[in-house]
Amino acid sequence: MAMQNFTFSLPTRVHFGKGQIARIQKEIPADAKVLITYGGGSILKNGVMDQVRAALAGHSTVEFGGIEPNPGYETLMKAVQIVKEQGITFLLAVGGGSTLDGTKFIAAAACYDHAEDPWEILLTGSKHIKAALPLGSVLTLPATGSEMNSAAVITRYETKDKLSMASEHVIPRFAVLDPETTFSLPVKQTANGIVDTFVHTSEQYMTYPLDAQIPDRFAESVYTTLLEDGPKVMADGNDYSARANIMWAATMGLNRILATGVPQDWVSHAMGHELTAMFGIDHGRTLAITMPAVWDYCREDKKGKLLQFADRVLGICEGSEDDIIDAAIAAVRDFFTSLGCPCYLSDYDIDETAIPALVAKLTEHAKTGIGERQKITPEDMGKIYALALKGGADA
Amino acid sequence: MAMQNFTFSLPTRVHFGKGQIARIQKEIPADAKVLITYGGGSILKNGVMDQVRAALAGHSTVEFGGIEPNPGYETLMKAVQIVKEQGITFLLAVGGGSTLDGTKFIAAAACYDHAEDPWEILLTGSKHIKAALPLGSVLTLPATGSEMNSAAVITRYETKDKLSMASEHVIPRFAVLDPETTFSLPVKQTANGIVDTFVHTSEQYMTYPLDAQIPDRFAESVYTTLLEDGPKVMADGNDYSARANIMWAATMGLNRILATGVPQDWVSHAMGHELTAMFGIDHGRTLAITMPAVWDYCREDKKGKLLQFADRVLGICEGSEDDIIDAAIAAVRDFFTSLGCPCYLSDYDIDETAIPALVAKLTEHAKTGIGERQKITPEDMGKIYALALKGGADA
Repeated sequence: MAMQNFTFSLPTRVHFGKGQIARIQKEIPADAKVLITYGGGSILKNGVMDQVRAALAGHSTVEFGGIEPNPGYETLMKAVQIVKEQGITFLLAVGGGSTLDGTKFIAAAACYDHAEDPWEILLTGSKHIKAALPLGSVLTLPATGSEMNSAAVITRYETKDKLSMASEHVIPRFAVLDPETTFSLPVKQTANGIVDTFVHTSEQYMTYPLDAQIPDRFAESVYTTLLEDGPKVMADGNDYSARANIMWAATMGLNRILATGVPQDWVSHAMGHELTAMFGIDHGRTLAITMPAVWDYCREDKKGKLLQFADRVLGICEGSEDDIIDAAIAAVRDFFTSLGCPCYLSDYDIDETAIPALVAKLTEHAKTGIGERQKITPEDMGKIYALALKGGADA
Repeated sequence: MAMQNFTFSLPTRVHFGKGQIARIQKEIPADAKVLITYGGGSILKNGVMDQVRAALAGHSTVEFGGIEPNPGYETLMKAVQIVKEQGITFLLAVGGGSTLDGTKFIAAAACYDHAEDPWEILLTGSKHIKAALPLGSVLTLPATGSEMNSAAVITRYETKDKLSMASEHVIPRFAVLDPETTFSLPVKQTANGIVDTFVHTSEQYMTYPLDAQIPDRFAESVYTTLLEDGPKVMADGNDYSARANIMWAATMGLNRILATGVPQDWVSHAMGHELTAMFGIDHGRTLAITMPAVWDYCREDKKGKLLQFADRVLGICEGSEDDIIDAAIAAVRDFFTSLGCPCYLSDYDIDETAIPALVAKLTEHAKTGIGERQKITPEDMGKIYALALKGGADA
């Protein structure tokens, strides 16, 4: 076993640190007409938008707020309309992964001519995206890794569909990562971002061993950072150093460096997306439910990596292989729970009667033969949901 | 203490793995006139050039061989002449770091109009480089990290000057990293590459702690990979998996990801360059001499990181701080020696009488106030050379 072939680059220019928002002035062409996109408006209160407006004082700008968590197709199409009406030439996403993902969709949809309705992008694996508006971002929520990658996840609320897109054309030109912009994050969003990064890492790491030293050890570095600095940012949101470590870890978690030469899983995400679409549970929180159950269900297929994780990240190496794996899964559930992200469907008052509908949606979204061995079916995923029904004494 | 501000991107597209040389066909524009640069000619014997020629069968190409280890200004200027005479529009470096560094100089020198003699690039900190020919590489020797970065080191043999340049304009557009191309490397070059990568990592890691989790732990990942896979490739040059791990580790060692948010040192390199220029010792082998002596001399300034390295990478944590640091330095010298790279000047029949001339060259090259605290002077470096005069019972 050895590293698999891969192609890798990170063209996005990251400006990291205090005061870096000012850099956007030179990153965006002086003659651009800029659409500044944002979410619920926290950036209007915490000073981030003020910094953005100051940096772009000499630019022509239009602002578009209200992109929701799990960005909605219906909202984004309103922005596409503005882009076309006003001749927008550059997009600047100011916010978290949802704003950025939504802006990637806007960038592609504004240039999409393969079908009348750009929702087709989500239904055809993004293969007809031939161009997109250039975009950059000021990231305020470390979580999705969207700031340095080509992917986005979009939700269509009228049909409860949550689907992903990916295209080289929507990789951000630049991203400003100022840890100070995360000081004012609510505890819940901070926690969700930590869990999201943890599970991104796992989707690329927790498969089967290939003797791939760099991606494996880099992934273990991200895990260790989350385990050490996660509690620090939860305890003190103004701890710059810990915020910086979490922010850079989140970017590494999904900028594809952890995926160089190794197989990937993504079952936890497929299952989590259906929980968000059906029950409105925050993305990160759905992953705290699904990932430990995936590890449990796939413990034979993932055994080599589960033992490596237990040893190198948690320092657990005593007992039988099953004991070690049980202890590792329990430790991860304890970590997620300590962040306020419970790990069972019962914590959201969801019981086994929901599983058939979830499996039906997974089937509809053609999520079959997935995971690192392309063998996890919607039926398997139904069994995995069942493993996440109740914890502890209730199980 | 926290991570420092930084700007980071990795625009070079890496194609990693078996058979990836064929990718260059689409990476180089069909109408380009390509200069293929190479070194001593091993690529003509091991099949690499055959693969390159096959991939570029439809392209217009000119071949230029003979770029020496520690690429020479005199040789490179002959290539610049060819570029101008023949209207070359794209450079493809096929070989190790020396060929690639030399090709970066050719790329910049061919477009340089600030002075009649492009040697000025090396004397003025590269600040007048305004453009360069596009270039790519097929890397056959993992060591310098040059395949994904903006830097190059050039030697002028007539004056024994070895100086560095750096410019965004000479970052390779693409790099093919096929571990199979390294199967035929001589043991000495394999060893030199491992030491070179180890010391690149140290120049970015072995400074003072900033609570910078990601760069620190990524650096420790590279160290561990070298320590584990280095002996494997020395024992069996055809071990694809170990060759792949070493190759990807070498790229990470100097593509700037280990430098994100942390101070850098580079004293070991400054001192090593003078040993190469004066005595013709291979670059990697000079670093096996200088780096352990730098750690020894700077043990107070580097204490925090030396202890962290000893603990996390070597598992040494018993005894006094000085005991731990002594043991860590001894372990690193043992590792270098096991690779056939001796750690003392006496191993090259150099004694203390050489030190004044080395210090004079360092002074001439304005190497003062360097290191992570900008305080290492040529006089300090003279004392560091003295710490590397003789080892063991001879010391």
